[in-house]
Amino acid sequence: MNRDRDDAGVGVVAPRQVTLCHPPDELYLQSGRILGPIQVTYETYGRLSPNRDNAVLVCHALSGDHHAAGRHAPDDRKPGWWDPMIGPGRGIDTDRYFVVCSNVLGSCKGTTGPSSINPRTGKPFGMRFPVITVRDMVKVQALLLDHLGIDRLLCVIGGSMGGMQALEWAVRYPDRVRSVVPVSTTGASSPLGIGFNKIGRRAIMADPNWRDGDYYDGEPPRDGLAVARMIGHLTFMSEASMRRKFGRRISGREGIYAFTAQYDVERYLHYNGYRFTEQFDANSYLYLTKALDTFDLGDGFAGGMDEALARIQARIRFFTFTSDWLYVPEDTDVLEERLRALGKKVEHIRVDSDYGHDAFLLEHDRYAQQVAEFLESVAGEG
Amino acid sequence: MNRDRDDAGVGVVAPRQVTLCHPPDELYLQSGRILGPIQVTYETYGRLSPNRDNAVLVCHALSGDHHAAGRHAPDDRKPGWWDPMIGPGRGIDTDRYFVVCSNVLGSCKGTTGPSSINPRTGKPFGMRFPVITVRDMVKVQALLLDHLGIDRLLCVIGGSMGGMQALEWAVRYPDRVRSVVPVSTTGASSPLGIGFNKIGRRAIMADPNWRDGDYYDGEPPRDGLAVARMIGHLTFMSEASMRRKFGRRISGREGIYAFTAQYDVERYLHYNGYRFTEQFDANSYLYLTKALDTFDLGDGFAGGMDEALARIQARIRFFTFTSDWLYVPEDTDVLEERLRALGKKVEHIRVDSDYGHDAFLLEHDRYAQQVAEFLESVAGEG
Repeated sequence: MNRDRDDAGVGVVAPRQVTLCHPPDELYLQSGRILGPIQVTYETYGRLSPNRDNAVLVCHALSGDHHAAGRHAPDDRKPGWWDPMIGPGRGIDTDRYFVVCSNVLGSCKGTTGPSSINPRTGKPFGMRFPVITVRDMVKVQALLLDHLGIDRLLCVIGGSMGGMQALEWAVRYPDRVRSVVPVSTTGASSPLGIGFNKIGRRAIMADPNWRDGDYYDGEPPRDGLAVARMIGHLTFMSEASMRRKFGRRISGREGIYAFTAQYDVERYLHYNGYRFTEQFDANSYLYLTKALDTFDLGDGFAGGMDEALARIQARIRFFTFTSDWLYVPEDTDVLEERLRALGKKVEHIRVDSDYGHDAFLLEHDRYAQQVAEFLESVAGEG
Repeated sequence: MNRDRDDAGVGVVAPRQVTLCHPPDELYLQSGRILGPIQVTYETYGRLSPNRDNAVLVCHALSGDHHAAGRHAPDDRKPGWWDPMIGPGRGIDTDRYFVVCSNVLGSCKGTTGPSSINPRTGKPFGMRFPVITVRDMVKVQALLLDHLGIDRLLCVIGGSMGGMQALEWAVRYPDRVRSVVPVSTTGASSPLGIGFNKIGRRAIMADPNWRDGDYYDGEPPRDGLAVARMIGHLTFMSEASMRRKFGRRISGREGIYAFTAQYDVERYLHYNGYRFTEQFDANSYLYLTKALDTFDLGDGFAGGMDEALARIQARIRFFTFTSDWLYVPEDTDVLEERLRALGKKVEHIRVDSDYGHDAFLLEHDRYAQQVAEFLESVAGEG
C-alpha cells in the first residue's frame, strides 16, 4: 500500500445497471421458485486487464450496497462503505485490480427485491417476493460477471454477509474463483445470530404499518424497522468499545429520573435506528435477515459441510476480530481446521480489536496490508 | 449442604403483604418525589433466631418476584425461582437461616408499581408512577425489615438486579449488613446493558396498544413487551449454550424457504416472549429497566464510586460466570480491586460456565456450596 496516495481514492464513480434473467430465462432460486427479470445495480473501480484476470468481486453486508468506494459527486459527504479499503495503493489496489461490487438480490438499493415492481401485477412484490438465499445472491453475481465477460475472479472478498457470499462462491464456482477472503463471517449462521434476526423481524411484523408487507402506498413500518436496526447496531459493537464511546453519559432536561432522560448510548441507537428507516426498506430487511439465517454452506450436500468444503479450489485467507461476539473467531477456527484437514490452502488471521463485529468496517489499518499482500501473492501465482 | 434432604425444599409457602409508608410518612425517593402508601409482598422461609441474627435477604432480578422457594400449593408445577438454592441443607440453609424475599418496588407482582391504583385518582398510575431506583427498592426492603423486627442482616444475596440491591445495601446500610453476595452483577450499569434495555423500552412504547402507559382498561402492548423480553432472553444466554440447546434445527410445513419456517431458537424466543406478557406488566418492565440503567453505586457521592465503596463494612463474596457477556466478569474484577485497595474484605469467585448471564439461575450445583460456606463463615464470626 502506498500511503501517499491514500487521500485520492477512486474519485467520482457512477453506478450502472443491467437487467438479467429475462423470461423465459428466469433465475431458478434455491427455494425452487423462479424470478425474472432481475435488475442489478453495480459499480466498478480500476481497469480490467487485457486477459481479464485481475477482477476482484467485493460483496457487501446486510445494510450495504454496490457503492463500496469513491463518491457519486465531488461534494458527497461520505464515500462508499469500504472506501478506506479500495483505491489506488489501498488494500484492494485499483491500480492493479478491477473491482466489481453489486447490490445483492433482495435489497432495496437498485437490485430487484421485495420493494421492486412485480411485472405480473404492476405493484410492488411485498411478501410475494420469493425467499432468497446467499446462494441465490451469488448466482446473480455470477450472471453479472458473465455479462461483464469475466470468467474467473482473482478474489471474492467481503465481511459478514459479504463473507458468506465469498465462501459460497468458493463452494459453488470452484473453477471461477482463485481466492476468497471471508471476513468476520461463518460457514453456517449461529442460533445467536438467528435469534437477533428473529427479534428484528418480529418487531417489523408487529408494527401495524407493516400490513403484511403491503405498505408501499402508505406509511412504512418505521418503528419496527428502527427497533430491528437498533438491535443490529448493538450486536455489531462490543462491551469495551461501548464503554469507551458512551460510558454512562446522560442528558435530560427534566433530570435523570425521567423517561425523557437519555443515556448517550440510547440517543445513538435511537438516532441511527430511525435514520436507517429513511434509507432502507423494511421488507428487504426481512428477506436479507432470512437469507442470513438460512445460510449453511453444507445445505443441500448429502455429505454436509465437508462435502461442500471439499469442492473448494480457491486459496482462503480468513480474517476475524477478537471482540466479535456475533460472529465469533472460534467459529472460523473450526472452519479453518476442517478445510486444513481436507488439504485446502487456508489461513486465518485473527486481528486484535475491541470494536466487535463492526471492526471489519472500522479497523482497516489493522488488516488492509494483509489483504494487499494476499492479493499480490494470488496474482503472482497467475 | 446435606444432599439427602435436597428433595424436600421449604415445602408449601404463602406470600404475605404489608402496607408501609402511609401518608404523611411517605417514602422519599431518589428522584425527589414522594410515594405512599406502599404495599409490599414478601415470603419468608426458616425461622428467625431468638436473637434475630440469622436473617438472609434474597433479592430478585428483573422478572423475578418474592416467590423464591417452595410451592404455593402442593401440586404447583414449578417451585420458586431460586428453589435449588434455598431450603434445608441447600446453599442458603433454611434450617439455619431465616430467609426473606420481597417483591421490589415498581414491580407488578404484589408490591406497589405502575399498575397499582393511584390512591389520589382511583386509577392505575401508569406513567404517572415516579421513576424509581435500586436505592429506592432497598429503602423499601429496609422498612420491611424494620416491620419484621430485624435490625441487622446476616447477608444480602442476589443475582443481576438482585446483586445491585445487595451492593446498594452494603453501601447505604453499612451497619445493618454483615455480608453481601452479589452474583452476576455490576457496580454501575454498562452502556451495553442500557442499550438493550433502551431497545426493549422503545419496542413497548412504539406499540400502539401502549397508549402512553394507559392501557389498563384495554389491550396491553403485548407485541412490544414480547420483543423486549425476547431481547432479554437472548442476552441471558451465550453463543455456546445456544449452539448446544438449539443448533440450526428448523421446522416449517411450507419448507425452510418460507417466513413461516421457524428455527428452534425462534420458536423458543417467540413462545417465551409472548408467555411473559401474560405474567408481567409492560409499564413495570419500563420502570425496572430504567432502574437498572440508572444504577451506579457512586451516584450522589462527591467522591463517586470510591466514596461509596469506602462506606462498606460487610464482607463481600462476588460470584461471576465466565460466559456472561452482559455482566462481564472483568467488570467485577475492577470492583474487587477497588474494594481491596480500600481494605475491604472481598472475594471474587469466577465460576466456569457456558450458560451466560442465566448461569446464576441454572448452575446452582457449581456455586451453592460456596454460598453455604460463606454464610457459615459469616455466621461463625457472630
